[in-house]
Amino acid sequence: MESYEILKSLAIIIVAAKLCGLAASKLKAPQVVGEIIAGLLIGPSVLGLVEQTEFLSQMAEIGVVLLMFFAGLETNLKDLMKTGPKAFLIACAGVLVPLIGGFLLYSCFYGFSSVGTDEFYTAVFIGVIMTATSVSITVATLQELGHLKDTVGTTIMSAAIIDDVIGIIVLTFVIGFKNPESSPFKVVGNTVLFFVMALIVGVIGYRIFKYLDKRYPHTRRIPIFGLVLCFAMAYIAEKYFGIADITGAYVAGIILCSIQDSSYIARKVDISSYMIFGPLFFASIGIKTSISAMNGTILLFSIGFVVVALVSKIVGCGLMSRALGFKGKDSMKIGVGMMTRGEVALIVSQKGLAVGMIDSVYFTAVILLILVSSIITPIILKVLYRSKA
Amino acid sequence: MESYEILKSLAIIIVAAKLCGLAASKLKAPQVVGEIIAGLLIGPSVLGLVEQTEFLSQMAEIGVVLLMFFAGLETNLKDLMKTGPKAFLIACAGVLVPLIGGFLLYSCFYGFSSVGTDEFYTAVFIGVIMTATSVSITVATLQELGHLKDTVGTTIMSAAIIDDVIGIIVLTFVIGFKNPESSPFKVVGNTVLFFVMALIVGVIGYRIFKYLDKRYPHTRRIPIFGLVLCFAMAYIAEKYFGIADITGAYVAGIILCSIQDSSYIARKVDISSYMIFGPLFFASIGIKTSISAMNGTILLFSIGFVVVALVSKIVGCGLMSRALGFKGKDSMKIGVGMMTRGEVALIVSQKGLAVGMIDSVYFTAVILLILVSSIITPIILKVLYRSKA
Repeated sequence: MESYEILKSLAIIIVAAKLCGLAASKLKAPQVVGEIIAGLLIGPSVLGLVEQTEFLSQMAEIGVVLLMFFAGLETNLKDLMKTGPKAFLIACAGVLVPLIGGFLLYSCFYGFSSVGTDEFYTAVFIGVIMTATSVSITVATLQELGHLKDTVGTTIMSAAIIDDVIGIIVLTFVIGFKNPESSPFKVVGNTVLFFVMALIVGVIGYRIFKYLDKRYPHTRRIPIFGLVLCFAMAYIAEKYFGIADITGAYVAGIILCSIQDSSYIARKVDISSYMIFGPLFFASIGIKTSISAMNGTILLFSIGFVVVALVSKIVGCGLMSRALGFKGKDSMKIGVGMMTRGEVALIVSQKGLAVGMIDSVYFTAVILLILVSSIITPIILKVLYRSKA
Repeated sequence: MESYEILKSLAIIIVAAKLCGLAASKLKAPQVVGEIIAGLLIGPSVLGLVEQTEFLSQMAEIGVVLLMFFAGLETNLKDLMKTGPKAFLIACAGVLVPLIGGFLLYSCFYGFSSVGTDEFYTAVFIGVIMTATSVSITVATLQELGHLKDTVGTTIMSAAIIDDVIGIIVLTFVIGFKNPESSPFKVVGNTVLFFVMALIVGVIGYRIFKYLDKRYPHTRRIPIFGLVLCFAMAYIAEKYFGIADITGAYVAGIILCSIQDSSYIARKVDISSYMIFGPLFFASIGIKTSISAMNGTILLFSIGFVVVALVSKIVGCGLMSRALGFKGKDSMKIGVGMMTRGEVALIVSQKGLAVGMIDSVYFTAVILLILVSSIITPIILKVLYRSKA
């Protein structure tokens, strides 16, 4: 293939993603939903203008790595520590209940399989997809309502962040267990080793960047070396510890999230991301989603998936909040605030597809979940905050 | 190849490019020279850490397209018009003399070939590489000296810009003529058709963007749609008119250079460029440069190449300036100011390699030219501006 041929795919994907993204915005849905639908439209499922090539999947990989790096960079470690304990318990409940819910849902549809079989892991994986709350959608909603900084808001934010971390750890474990060569012992060992390595790299890296930041504030070298840290951590995580590359990228973001120029780095990464890599990542999900494999069972499954995913978050987070002393209504707000899903659910599904744990047909269920949760969460939250009681 | 493997290459290339770029800066050389040397060091010639893969060459292609788009965006059409006529003639002389000089140099070294043979075109191409003055290096030098806005400065700027355009037209013609299927008539026809198409797209595109800009100033959609125009024009130029994709990208930049948000677009493109694509493009030149093929003749040729390239610019531009009424010393300043070479010379060489007109061994000569011209031009200009006479 001539090199210039890729320019055609890039032009088509980026323009379609942006147009559909803007259309989604108009309809008050998140832009990513539009971008995914754009991929669906231009991909083999509908118009066939663009095909999934190796180049596109490599660009999409860079895209998701950048997104997770950005998420790490945006983390506020101090706030996280402050509302810590309560948020941690809420997040745990918010991971556990959907995980079990997803597992039961899949098993009810396709039968219960014995522990260790492929089907068993697929069932677990469906649960894993349900665990991750989307920070970005939660933030946008709370900010719009003006309740980002009150107790409930901060708790939701912290829980959503912790939820992300737990979700990624669960993902790492499940993928590690699935690998036939690895024993549970090895997986745990590798995970511990990775986090030890991350801590060492983190302490050293943080000092180096703090020095660079003081000596050369707001210079190009800071985001560039940050990006290098991100790519290196992502590669090392996957290559030497068998841990998802996105975990490595996220950890790289966390390492840099407390330096002075972290938002400077985040802005540069964000621009590279939304100009090219982001649209390619989201559109490529649409391009890979196979509509032709859709049938009655899967449609029914998708609906069940959405219901279980939403209800299990409200139940898990809401009941735990209540148990921790929040009032009934505040508990409800926390439960609802935690039910939005977004990029991370897609990233997790994407990873599951890559390692052969789930089929691309389940992408439809995930997209439906993001769409529904992103639309109804702001509406329900608005109602909850407005009704005085 | 697993997708995450590319992350390793990216991390190595970006960190090496930035470190060598910073080292080059310290030595007062342009950063791009450092980035190219980084590629040489990590590539198969020396350390062998990174190989040229299809993915890298596709990323490099996006990199060069972005650079040319950026160059187009930075053009100031009004200044170009004002100092127009004189600058045009100076630019013409500054293209013609090096073109002939390069042709003669190659022919002296390897013999004169009859018109139409491959060797003949290689000789012409060596001349083509010599034609393009680097706007960025010229600007940086004049800005540093505080003479960017005086008559001589403006004339140099305008001539450098026109020189770029002429250089690209010459490149287009030469590549078009080389293609065995195309007759000279067809090449001229295609080129004219392309510029007619560009004019139509330009007028329509300009209006659309002006509207968008007024309605939604400083929104993400403007740089994103700009990028789409760039990729689309680049693809269409190469695919349907047989014109270099970089010409298409440059024209896309010119189309948008007069809208209000052109610098907003340029900034976003620049960030995507220097974070990832730029270093990949320059380093990939180093990775591709074959030192092993270096021998006495080529070394001697490289030295001759640098001397001819520098002297022919001074002679061409200087004499024409004198003929147009500039004083002796001002003519000299213009000649020297025009002799810097940079990205465009590399881009042209890159294109010549891609279409099989030159061998990668000549990259060494081009790199030497950039290095020497970038170092001595500021020094000579400083001397010329300081000595009162």
